[in-house]
Amino acid sequence: MGMKLYGTPLSTNATRVRSLLNEKGIDFELVPVNLRAGDHKRPPFLALNPFGQVPVLQDGDIILFESRAINRYIASRYKETGPDLLRSAAGPAETAAVEVWLAVESQQFGPPIEELVFEVLIKPLIGETTDQTAVEREVERLGRVLDVYEERLSKNKYLAGGEFTLADLNHMTYTYFLLRTPQADLVTSRSHVLAWWEDISSRPAWKKTAEIIPV
Amino acid sequence: MGMKLYGTPLSTNATRVRSLLNEKGIDFELVPVNLRAGDHKRPPFLALNPFGQVPVLQDGDIILFESRAINRYIASRYKETGPDLLRSAAGPAETAAVEVWLAVESQQFGPPIEELVFEVLIKPLIGETTDQTAVEREVERLGRVLDVYEERLSKNKYLAGGEFTLADLNHMTYTYFLLRTPQADLVTSRSHVLAWWEDISSRPAWKKTAEIIPV
Repeated sequence: MGMKLYGTPLSTNATRVRSLLNEKGIDFELVPVNLRAGDHKRPPFLALNPFGQVPVLQDGDIILFESRAINRYIASRYKETGPDLLRSAAGPAETAAVEVWLAVESQQFGPPIEELVFEVLIKPLIGETTDQTAVEREVERLGRVLDVYEERLSKNKYLAGGEFTLADLNHMTYTYFLLRTPQADLVTSRSHVLAWWEDISSRPAWKKTAEIIPV
Repeated sequence: MGMKLYGTPLSTNATRVRSLLNEKGIDFELVPVNLRAGDHKRPPFLALNPFGQVPVLQDGDIILFESRAINRYIASRYKETGPDLLRSAAGPAETAAVEVWLAVESQQFGPPIEELVFEVLIKPLIGETTDQTAVEREVERLGRVLDVYEERLSKNKYLAGGEFTLADLNHMTYTYFLLRTPQADLVTSRSHVLAWWEDISSRPAWKKTAEIIPV
């Protein structure tokens, strides 16, 4: 039985999982959840994820939520299907770097870019008003984070070193959405960050992932 | 050469790493960083962590930052020293549950409890004024998260199932600090969350960890 991924083509966090499944060449069914109707906050869905959020992955008997946990699970359980994006056979210095940059995505990059994309892209789509004070605050916060990335990527082709890893992949969904906003220059004004993005977004698996994103 | 952990006894995130090193029985030296003097924002420290935050772990030639990445690294590289808190020999359902609850700590529990502890405990210690609007917002947000925990812990002794794992451990530092604030009832009013805390905080490694926390 193939995997089922509950989510939508517009969901940033479901896109994080889709990008990994495509990278691994794993077949899955995208099971739509009607977020506008609030289906994610009702019992059938809450039985899958008590926090009422997409995505949820069903792999046989195993049900997982939280996109970063799902990606770890896929990368680890299916490490021999497609590239081993956790670099588990590399030395401890390289696997340590993968851990660090996975956590940087989640703790430093994630919070400001998630709020910024919500304010400038998602809110207009759902008929809410962008909070300009929040936009300015998150632009500054994300800019400081990306300054560190610019320095890092001036010395390393990818975040964890010389190879594309899950640490890079987990950044792709929100970077893609940010590039469709007036704040795209946060990426395009930083030459090494931009070169990194151009490299990773040219991967066939990412092109396949982006095809169905409706923005 | 033993490990070096850069941080302070009051640092919530250094405490997360100390709690794991103590659980594993791994010797380390706590190297103080003068945060009041701003040493973490100056070049010698920025060479260790470009984001200018404690903790940083030095294990021989390997330098890591981000407390959750450090804990993954320790739990994985030293899985045979002390208990295997990633349950890597368990079946895929159990390791999936560890992944999910590690991500829940980082994505659902972390943001509100970190802001709350900062507002009600850290700000008074550093002479800043608590923002009551933020307190109310985060109390409500954390309460909703802990309602899910209460349900989960009514059916499972620990977050990922029947065994104590890194998913539980990563929660301990902020739970300890929260219990030293007027908002402690977020934990004490939920009987299964409280029973879980009483169980995990009775572990000798946690007692050793808490001994030097100055609050």
